[in-house]
Amino acid sequence: MPGKKLYVVGMGPGEERYMTREAIAALEESDVIAGYTVYINLLPEKYRNKEQIVTGMRQEEERCRMSLERASEGKTVALVCSGDAGVYGMASLVLELAEDYPGVEVNVVSGVTAALSGSAVLGSPLSNDFAVISLSDILTPKDKIIRRLRAAAEGDFCIALYNPGSRHRPDALKEAVQVLMESIEGGRVAGIVENIGREDQKMRICTLKELSECEVNMFMTVFIGNSLTKVIDGRLVTPRGYSIRKEEEERQDG
Amino acid sequence: MPGKKLYVVGMGPGEERYMTREAIAALEESDVIAGYTVYINLLPEKYRNKEQIVTGMRQEEERCRMSLERASEGKTVALVCSGDAGVYGMASLVLELAEDYPGVEVNVVSGVTAALSGSAVLGSPLSNDFAVISLSDILTPKDKIIRRLRAAAEGDFCIALYNPGSRHRPDALKEAVQVLMESIEGGRVAGIVENIGREDQKMRICTLKELSECEVNMFMTVFIGNSLTKVIDGRLVTPRGYSIRKEEEERQDG
Repeated sequence: MPGKKLYVVGMGPGEERYMTREAIAALEESDVIAGYTVYINLLPEKYRNKEQIVTGMRQEEERCRMSLERASEGKTVALVCSGDAGVYGMASLVLELAEDYPGVEVNVVSGVTAALSGSAVLGSPLSNDFAVISLSDILTPKDKIIRRLRAAAEGDFCIALYNPGSRHRPDALKEAVQVLMESIEGGRVAGIVENIGREDQKMRICTLKELSECEVNMFMTVFIGNSLTKVIDGRLVTPRGYSIRKEEEERQDG
Repeated sequence: MPGKKLYVVGMGPGEERYMTREAIAALEESDVIAGYTVYINLLPEKYRNKEQIVTGMRQEEERCRMSLERASEGKTVALVCSGDAGVYGMASLVLELAEDYPGVEVNVVSGVTAALSGSAVLGSPLSNDFAVISLSDILTPKDKIIRRLRAAAEGDFCIALYNPGSRHRPDALKEAVQVLMESIEGGRVAGIVENIGREDQKMRICTLKELSECEVNMFMTVFIGNSLTKVIDGRLVTPRGYSIRKEEEERQDG
């Protein structure tokens, strides 16, 4: 029996240079490449010449099922996601649906999510404990988003906001800023990165209050510092803590 | 005048296959490779043959200064960090110290942090809003760590815990679990990954309560699900939300 393998692959920001070797190997090994049109089109020609499963928006479940279907037929399939495969990605949906496709081996290949790639553009805003929150209310009820914004502010977390707005939700960021400002001063340093790792990448450093006046779009990721975050030479920097000293042996990451 | 360039490079879990092309290109371009002994030794021979700045534990500031010093002398330097360059990494420390080394261009190269690489091993535990918290009290006061644990629980975030313990802090995870159990049921699904992406990688899925009985070490990353996280076919899976449907146009990551 042929292998029945489905890779759920995090592409990072999009271009091949931001992919891990593991992700590239998964694409090379695969017979079929599946993904949302926009992400598929970011792939180099050599991958786009393989059999494709391309679906548009609002077709995520269909895309996952088609990918699992082809894998169950014995093809090796790579389902690509921008950023990480797990963070707001397809991995959990695939693992939920995989129960209907016995024998398919699902491999999750992680990638650089926007919280990390965007941080690198701004400097180092997430260098202490942080929270990642999506402002999209399609999958999470609005009251839960508000509860999480309050909790993140209460915990003095560095914050990365995904999906800060779209033409359907032009005021999402403004509303989030209002919630955060219940406990965070308006002058708290913040930043926005747009089209991370792409030709038209833009970044801006501003204050929490100024975020509410920003025109947002779905290609932006927003960062809000914790109480120690500062701007150094045009970069957003969160000190790792109250002392510069750090025992390596205490750390596994960094 | 020669370029004065310092790359702060996130290696991911360690092996080259988990690095991005961007990270590999930075290592190839560099004249000098700097890092903590353990991480340097994870690099392929070809990089270790370059000039090295290797310092042991408790020498992070010294390592950053030596790297900035060599860069200011005109060498291109890559300072490697495991995981991401920013998340509990060297990027913020370098950017703080860089003020003393005018003319050095600091480039932050992001990598796959343990929250992402560990998630891929367990399944997809961080597929909705999440918080990353380090239990090391060297750089963050213990009361702040406790405050953040309470806030993460209150916000029903998926949680990734870094530095869950060491021989200096054998009870750090047990104490954190006690705090989380003030508001989270003991049966909440959780997981542990050890030596992510390395030969002796281990993973375990258990409950929040069971975490407090685990022997922890500094090579572990701990994951605690949110109220919707479940175990499917041996994997830890957090549904992306209350509906499987999702508008692609609303998303930039996934």
